Amino acid sequence: MNRRFFLKNGSLGIIGSSLFKPFDSSANNMGYDLAQNTKKAKNIIMIISDGMSSGTLHMTDLYLSRKYGTGSNWLQLYTDNRVSRSLMDMASASSIVTDSAAASSSWGCGVRVYSGSLNIGTRGEEHMPLWQKFKKAEKKAGCVTTVPITHATPAGFCINQKSRSNQERIAEKYLQQKFDVMMGGGDTYFSPEKRKDKKDMYQNFTSKGYKVVKTRSEMLSASIDQPILGVFHDNGFPYSIDRENSKELQQKVPTLAEMTQKAIEAMKDHPKGFVLQVEAGKVDWAAHGNDIAGLIYDQIAHDEAIQVAMDFAEQDGETLVIITTDHGNANPGLIYGNEANGNFDSLQKYKHTNDWILSGIGKETSVSQIKERVNYATGIVLTNEETKQLLSHYTDVHSEEGLYNPRHLPFKLLAEIQQKHTSIGWISMKHSADYVELAMFGPRSQLLKPFIKNTDLHYLMLAAAEVENIF
Amino acid sequence: MNRRFFLKNGSLGIIGSSLFKPFDSSANNMGYDLAQNTKKAKNIIMIISDGMSSGTLHMTDLYLSRKYGTGSNWLQLYTDNRVSRSLMDMASASSIVTDSAAASSSWGCGVRVYSGSLNIGTRGEEHMPLWQKFKKAEKKAGCVTTVPITHATPAGFCINQKSRSNQERIAEKYLQQKFDVMMGGGDTYFSPEKRKDKKDMYQNFTSKGYKVVKTRSEMLSASIDQPILGVFHDNGFPYSIDRENSKELQQKVPTLAEMTQKAIEAMKDHPKGFVLQVEAGKVDWAAHGNDIAGLIYDQIAHDEAIQVAMDFAEQDGETLVIITTDHGNANPGLIYGNEANGNFDSLQKYKHTNDWILSGIGKETSVSQIKERVNYATGIVLTNEETKQLLSHYTDVHSEEGLYNPRHLPFKLLAEIQQKHTSIGWISMKHSADYVELAMFGPRSQLLKPFIKNTDLHYLMLAAAEVENIF
Ligand SMILES: [Zn+2]
Ligand SMILES: [Zn+2]
Repeated sequence: MNRRFFLKNGSLGIIGSSLFKPFDSSANNMGYDLAQNTKKAKNIIMIISDGMSSGTLHMTDLYLSRKYGTGSNWLQLYTDNRVSRSLMDMASASSIVTDSAAASSSWGCGVRVYSGSLNIGTRGEEHMPLWQKFKKAEKKAGCVTTVPITHATPAGFCINQKSRSNQERIAEKYLQQKFDVMMGGGDTYFSPEKRKDKKDMYQNFTSKGYKVVKTRSEMLSASIDQPILGVFHDNGFPYSIDRENSKELQQKVPTLAEMTQKAIEAMKDHPKGFVLQVEAGKVDWAAHGNDIAGLIYDQIAHDEAIQVAMDFAEQDGETLVIITTDHGNANPGLIYGNEANGNFDSLQKYKHTNDWILSGIGKETSVSQIKERVNYATGIVLTNEETKQLLSHYTDVHSEEGLYNPRHLPFKLLAEIQQKHTSIGWISMKHSADYVELAMFGPRSQLLKPFIKNTDLHYLMLAAAEVENIF
Repeated sequence: MNRRFFLKNGSLGIIGSSLFKPFDSSANNMGYDLAQNTKKAKNIIMIISDGMSSGTLHMTDLYLSRKYGTGSNWLQLYTDNRVSRSLMDMASASSIVTDSAAASSSWGCGVRVYSGSLNIGTRGEEHMPLWQKFKKAEKKAGCVTTVPITHATPAGFCINQKSRSNQERIAEKYLQQKFDVMMGGGDTYFSPEKRKDKKDMYQNFTSKGYKVVKTRSEMLSASIDQPILGVFHDNGFPYSIDRENSKELQQKVPTLAEMTQKAIEAMKDHPKGFVLQVEAGKVDWAAHGNDIAGLIYDQIAHDEAIQVAMDFAEQDGETLVIITTDHGNANPGLIYGNEANGNFDSLQKYKHTNDWILSGIGKETSVSQIKERVNYATGIVLTNEETKQLLSHYTDVHSEEGLYNPRHLPFKLLAEIQQKHTSIGWISMKHSADYVELAMFGPRSQLLKPFIKNTDLHYLMLAAAEVENIF
């Protein structure tokens, strides 16, 4: 037990309860008092809903309660008093309002970096990512997500790179590090037909001993004797509610809970333990689109992954489960009014997202076809005026912009039209500065204080697992 | 110790650690396990920020941090790990999204009532309000607020009434119950010149032994040997930032912290203890007006009242402090963008609220006068176009509506114009369904679970103080 633990700026911390310094979030004193927490975490599962404002969590719980009589797994953990809770300040080095790359890096390397960059400090220096530290401690490490596996949130735990946007390069860096389970979307960054450099990353992963899987059934039946690369979609996955209403998508694409289950199975018997990041990445995309059905159903997908992780952790007894989000987005909320209950409950009839609605419209679509499509997906009867407004976005050059809106679809307009039917409002289509909700279950979860900085969580994870810090 | 404690629907609970049933939020089983919490709360101070979305709390903490280097007292309690925390579901009997009357009643009588009503159940039955229960237990009881003392939040702890709107009648009911300290605004409901029935409520309170005070200095010097009625303004107080920039208002109107201090002084030596409700009522009004300077500075006023209560509670050792809000409102948030930091910090230059700006404009005001007024109050330079838009609202019959906007001022328009300078967005001008943040300090604060219903808090307060429940 007397090995090197925290070493930074010349200060040396030694493991062992009596020598352990009390936790202080300042950079030079990151020891934790482990005296009353003798059992360490062998495994860590961190489950992130990307871009989840508090309203997203609360409305999803309300939605589930009103539809099924029981709310979310997340809030049930609170009702049952089984977790430590905190608020977390997610600011980046550049802004009070972070992006996902800086957010993930703050956890990933314990340093606030500029928005858009991955574990590269403000002086250009590289900081070793957390999953590399755990790999050096001989744990298995993996990530699963519903957006490209090369996206900012998984990348922030895995690699160093100045810009999050070069996802082709991120795929190569994953291969170098040989993480144990990497699954999500992003065929665009692996396929020789789609990569700019024409490299066949699938072949490269296979050559290095990976099992490569591309459909749900391949994933479910994959051997766990090899590391696994799973890439199930071009870019981000389809939204959960659209998948639920498509047999074809259900065959092609697994759920977040299924990927979580597979990743745990593949790593759980490793003698030194494992670390796993699980991301419901499309909650963020839905918030960027003010797309309420996307938001709630992908938050439910996140909640189902919580169930999988908790089922394992409860039985295992050596697994720390961390549940959180990386930043707010759009601060959605149900608005007061006589129709609030009925409007909110009308979401239970939705079959598809606004993304599904708008992606299926073109300038050739007729007014009656649009009305029919919207009515089929949401139960809403649009007026002719509203329908024409929507249609005009497909012919007008002055259409909507947005990082997650490459086709310039009228997401904002549709959400505005929808508001009188849903009573749900949004402050914008962008991230917000709100502190985020954080919950922890399992060994060393008592280390969590009720208000922390994002960077504290990096050191908490190392301390919880008693993994040596490396700079 | 063997006296009657909880008696409802035929079930009898007995105080005493061994006989105490574990906490269950269902109506028939409201016992708390007090075994490990031997010391009861002699006093309770509940400090409510009315209509505080989580973004309001977080932005105020960020504002204070960036301006002064230290954040809010509320979040400092989290950093220092000194409180129990919970999320609380505030739904009313009529809606997922509550109003302040139903919210206060849920705490005030342990029952969800229809929005707009005060401790009157859905079958028309009266439920005894919490402060009356504590009065019957021979504690002193009071309320202080920055809105009319007859407003929904204090009234919900004090009296029964079908509709919150009859504030004249509420003033009379207060007198019947003889609460010990009642201070806030609302001269309109006490003054013989302003009341419809011409009753002189001040005279009536004086006759019944009250000391009536109408200015800050009268309040500060008032004897504490008598019950106190303090009414310092016609209706709601001016916003804190407007008060700070007006010598005249500073002399007339006390701060929330000063009223809190006075109320504690007046009740703290009572042998049986006291209960006090403190409300930052204008946080809600600011959210209804999307009025950012009103919002942040009145939230700071709330935070300063926390300091007063905590200073007392720490020294006293027998006081439970409860810090919360009754519902979200407008879900404000700081929005991502290159200008987010600078825009947010520009709020530090504000001298006045949008309410102050718009109340000082009339149809006779010139474009240049409006531009000057806005620039003086906020530092913003309006365009001519924006200014004319504002001015048109003073001549146009189609002006803005709203419960807290009797003069139909263009609050929404000004907030929209302001957004590009502040990066702050709002989902609406109304309450939201978000679960609310709740913190507790002091004896029996360990009873709090991480997720509760609003009605649970009623029983928690009774259990914390070991005050007999009365139905
Ligand atoms: Zn995003
Ligand atoms: Zn309100």
